[in-house]
Amino acid sequence: MSPFFELLQQRRSKTDSMLCIGLDTDPNRIPQILANDPDPIFSFNREIIDATHDLVACYKPQIAYYSAVGAEDTLLATIEYAQKLGVPVLLDAKRGDIGSTAAMYAKELFERFRADAVTINPYMGQDAMQPFLDYQDKGIFILCRTSNPGGSDIQNLMLDSGLTIYEHVAQKAANDWNEHNNVALVVGATRPEEIGRIRSIVGDMEFLLPGVGAQGADIQQLMDNGRGGGLTISASRSVIYASVASDFAGAARRVADQTRQEINRYR
Amino acid sequence: MSPFFELLQQRRSKTDSMLCIGLDTDPNRIPQILANDPDPIFSFNREIIDATHDLVACYKPQIAYYSAVGAEDTLLATIEYAQKLGVPVLLDAKRGDIGSTAAMYAKELFERFRADAVTINPYMGQDAMQPFLDYQDKGIFILCRTSNPGGSDIQNLMLDSGLTIYEHVAQKAANDWNEHNNVALVVGATRPEEIGRIRSIVGDMEFLLPGVGAQGADIQQLMDNGRGGGLTISASRSVIYASVASDFAGAARRVADQTRQEINRYR
Repeated sequence: MSPFFELLQQRRSKTDSMLCIGLDTDPNRIPQILANDPDPIFSFNREIIDATHDLVACYKPQIAYYSAVGAEDTLLATIEYAQKLGVPVLLDAKRGDIGSTAAMYAKELFERFRADAVTINPYMGQDAMQPFLDYQDKGIFILCRTSNPGGSDIQNLMLDSGLTIYEHVAQKAANDWNEHNNVALVVGATRPEEIGRIRSIVGDMEFLLPGVGAQGADIQQLMDNGRGGGLTISASRSVIYASVASDFAGAARRVADQTRQEINRYR
Repeated sequence: MSPFFELLQQRRSKTDSMLCIGLDTDPNRIPQILANDPDPIFSFNREIIDATHDLVACYKPQIAYYSAVGAEDTLLATIEYAQKLGVPVLLDAKRGDIGSTAAMYAKELFERFRADAVTINPYMGQDAMQPFLDYQDKGIFILCRTSNPGGSDIQNLMLDSGLTIYEHVAQKAANDWNEHNNVALVVGATRPEEIGRIRSIVGDMEFLLPGVGAQGADIQQLMDNGRGGGLTISASRSVIYASVASDFAGAARRVADQTRQEINRYR
């Protein structure tokens, strides 16, 4: 197992939590009380992290929210702030490109932004993922079955082998792409039956399950189906925007702890 | 047809060129003569653009080369420099994410970086592409069959419908995703037979064909198979790194013009 997944497992034990909070910080949704701070996005993230870090397995910033507004420095500061508190950071970027370009994306995510783990897209095949897979110490989360409504458009097409595309991706991830034991899968929490099917294919591989909270996933069902390997369950908007009032960080903590406890109830 | 594709067609006529030069500018490959410039990457791009703009249909910077080294300002300056000379810019980013995040990526590419067109990844389905497709004036190039060796890993799997995945993506692009006539496909120039199969599915849809030059595509074969709709043929490393000596821009011009003429020979 790669050092990242060892760290993630230790962190889950220490905090008794499988929860990952998504730091999808939209500048238009930052509470008024922070509006005059020199860097409102960082102030917001810092307060969310201060209020929740003892309750989480990891944080997952979504890079688009930062790059849309030129906040690369804020993203790096946020990642380092969480890491200093001992929390690993999964940078959600879903990159995918030919090898020479993928090497640049890997450099962006792992070296510039110092991510502990990343998400990548499998559509372009193994050589497009290899520059990421070669970072043996990191966690590489490959998109398998995503949580969005259109996730089925491509991923659920049936192959002549009798597998769907997402099942094929799961099989390749387990059999071919995981040479360094640093591969995990992104499996939408909104699709409990499919979580179960993927679990049956990949054994005890780690899953990231986004879609709890604003996207409405059923925690009991996802836990029942995901059992058998490490689970990291991600909630973003429901936690970080729990309140827009001045107690937003306290509200985020309350929702984070409720979500963590609900997950633990079905463990 | 979206305003972008009208502009692209006009540009191809005016320059008598289907060539697109990929500005995949690697800081480690910039000629020594520029090393002491205040912004060597911009100096390099500006010299390449000055030397080639009358020979090209568009430029295609690959965002990873800029984001890996924190050169976002340089990327924007490069895009605006090309646009001021009347050349449209396709920003190669291959983004794909759930709707709320895809909207942020679209903002990044079209508003922050002012791209005229972008590349996106179809793996997450229609709702993940919709925020891009809603930019009706732009060009949205969807990955269909990519030029890299591993492109076949997923894209060439056979579905129970009798289509491969890339053929299915082509069909969806033509029938379902192109409501605003702003959709085009990325089809690797290295796969001539597959270019022909995709052409037969999508009628006169525009193609971006990367893979000429360093990736070794055969220009006669790709032209024979791509005929029937607009073609934009991309070369990157073979042109921009034609020489590392002080005449690098002149060398780039020579290779660009040779490539343009070879394409025109088989038109």
